[in-house]
Amino acid sequence: MKIVILGGDGFCGWPTTLKLAKEGHEVHIMDNLSRRKIDDELKSNSLTNIHSIGVRTDAARELGYNIRFWNIDITSYGYLAKAVNELKPDVIVHFAEQRAAPYSMIGQNERRYTVDNNVTGTHNVLNAIIDHSPETHLVHLGTMGVYGYSKEFGAIPEGYLNVKVNSTQEDTDILYPTNPGSVYHMTKSMDQLLFQFYNKNWGIKITDLHQGIVWGTQTEETMEDHRLTNRFDYDGIYGTVLNRFISQAASGNDLTVYGTGGQKRAFIHIQDTANCVKLAIENPADSKKVRIFNQASEVRSVLELANIISEKYGSNINYIENPRKELAENDLEVSNAGLKSLGFEPITLNESLIDDVKFIAQEGNVKKENILSSPKW
Amino acid sequence: MKIVILGGDGFCGWPTTLKLAKEGHEVHIMDNLSRRKIDDELKSNSLTNIHSIGVRTDAARELGYNIRFWNIDITSYGYLAKAVNELKPDVIVHFAEQRAAPYSMIGQNERRYTVDNNVTGTHNVLNAIIDHSPETHLVHLGTMGVYGYSKEFGAIPEGYLNVKVNSTQEDTDILYPTNPGSVYHMTKSMDQLLFQFYNKNWGIKITDLHQGIVWGTQTEETMEDHRLTNRFDYDGIYGTVLNRFISQAASGNDLTVYGTGGQKRAFIHIQDTANCVKLAIENPADSKKVRIFNQASEVRSVLELANIISEKYGSNINYIENPRKELAENDLEVSNAGLKSLGFEPITLNESLIDDVKFIAQEGNVKKENILSSPKW
Repeated sequence: MKIVILGGDGFCGWPTTLKLAKEGHEVHIMDNLSRRKIDDELKSNSLTNIHSIGVRTDAARELGYNIRFWNIDITSYGYLAKAVNELKPDVIVHFAEQRAAPYSMIGQNERRYTVDNNVTGTHNVLNAIIDHSPETHLVHLGTMGVYGYSKEFGAIPEGYLNVKVNSTQEDTDILYPTNPGSVYHMTKSMDQLLFQFYNKNWGIKITDLHQGIVWGTQTEETMEDHRLTNRFDYDGIYGTVLNRFISQAASGNDLTVYGTGGQKRAFIHIQDTANCVKLAIENPADSKKVRIFNQASEVRSVLELANIISEKYGSNINYIENPRKELAENDLEVSNAGLKSLGFEPITLNESLIDDVKFIAQEGNVKKENILSSPKW
Repeated sequence: MKIVILGGDGFCGWPTTLKLAKEGHEVHIMDNLSRRKIDDELKSNSLTNIHSIGVRTDAARELGYNIRFWNIDITSYGYLAKAVNELKPDVIVHFAEQRAAPYSMIGQNERRYTVDNNVTGTHNVLNAIIDHSPETHLVHLGTMGVYGYSKEFGAIPEGYLNVKVNSTQEDTDILYPTNPGSVYHMTKSMDQLLFQFYNKNWGIKITDLHQGIVWGTQTEETMEDHRLTNRFDYDGIYGTVLNRFISQAASGNDLTVYGTGGQKRAFIHIQDTANCVKLAIENPADSKKVRIFNQASEVRSVLELANIISEKYGSNINYIENPRKELAENDLEVSNAGLKSLGFEPITLNESLIDDVKFIAQEGNVKKENILSSPKW
């Protein structure tokens, strides 16, 4: 298949690109390299030594992968539309959003950048599809965060909630009532409304993957050549919780737990991100309704994660004030039946953790001042 | 009170400005005059002879009104933030969105303009409030169109729907599941998510007025001086259905009914728009939850409207193909209990219709080619 990966230079986009190329697909990365620029802005870095997009794609082509890079900012409609018109891809995978909740809560600049970038970008993609490639299947990376983190409405279903409307006593499936916890998560909720309307009015085929918190670094494909190494964020802004713990353990620092650590979240390994996107592509959505899958492997509390790592590596746990507005503790149960029905076999934490910590310990490029850099909200 | 009216030069904004100024409030219009520019773009015009914003505000000040005009595009954050910081208004009334469903469905340019303008503008307003004037009460003009037009969930409540979640058997109020019928309506659905999160995280006081289809031209205040005359859109893009019928009757043309005319909608007279906004301002929302009112006077079918006008003025009814994707016929019942509890006494159609048709017949500046200018979607 001919596949466009928007944001194909990022933490999830790059391993997914390689996975799909390895499957024999023709893969076009479109990326404005904004994640690398934000590293400079935040005086932050990938703990792993990542190579430029040019070196990366050269290395991939040496391995026989069919990959091309387009330096495109999807908020500039003209360039995007022209490229979509030229390629008329079978699939567009959309990772090209500002994806850090803490970044989106720093201040007005970052709040506004996140909304303008994510909403305009996603809306442009939909318009390019309508106008130039209406058969393209759009696979979008959403987030479990659109649901909020509670069992208020029971186990979290895949996108739609079955309710009885009390005034009519009729049963109906509604889009799960959104409850985002940051401006970033809010933009993914807004994306859902874009998808709902563009699917209803123009019949665009859309899969929205509500992903859990991603952890890990390397995948089978990124390990094939050192130039293909994936980025690894360990800082308080872009680093996800388990990856921060891994880097803290690997560098001999305390594990910093926000609040009590009683927050339960859904997690997924980076290898599974790539695997799940592959499954969604190879089993496309129809145009009747936006297809929503929960892309998550297992539910754990933050403290559970800290304990697992602490026991294995002898790290201390340091409880610090929670910078986020969120429930101190919550219960959580998540369905991932959709992807499982397509053959998804989740990698669980215990299996892969040791390899990841070992790998990160070797890289060792941690700037200590970045570990606790989260803004407060 | 010190009040900012975003979009205070427009069809609803201008009469509201005058109404609030007449009540003795200090009123600051902020507008980029985009509606006048779109007239040029569409080769369209206000049927009434409207004066420039400078002449309008001069005339208003001669009558003793405390009105100032700021030429500001709210999508430019810096200017907006500076003005909000300088004024620290008690209330911001937000009319400054691209508000025509047909315009938003012309093509990619108009779809993208509508989303970028409406979402970025509304988000900027929220950010200016957080950063510079957190006590300001935001009064936003939403639309009945966010609900969709059906009795699928019974009579339409004010913003929130009471449901029982079938998996938990718990009763809960959720934001009414949105079902917009155009890109324009979709942006108002997206606004709701912005309001929900900004209210939850920062406690901003917000009233969202889900307005019905506005009809009429003049209000008590716009009739005080000919230079204060309000705009009147009769074309297929910006003209609302009843105003199109009024202008067709007044100019001796057939009434053009889309489809069967069985579409039921909620309506409100322009005078009541101003009255309702006044009530919302003088009875502010608290910060616990976004307050949503349905700002509508009565429900009528399109054919009912055509029949009323046809009987009074002898016009023919011409049924034409519906350019919109919508139900051919629908039932509709709408609660407007919130504004009524604050003292709202709706003006109904039969009372005011004669004055409006007479006034429009005198003005008579109809370009016939504009009457059927709607795009198809």
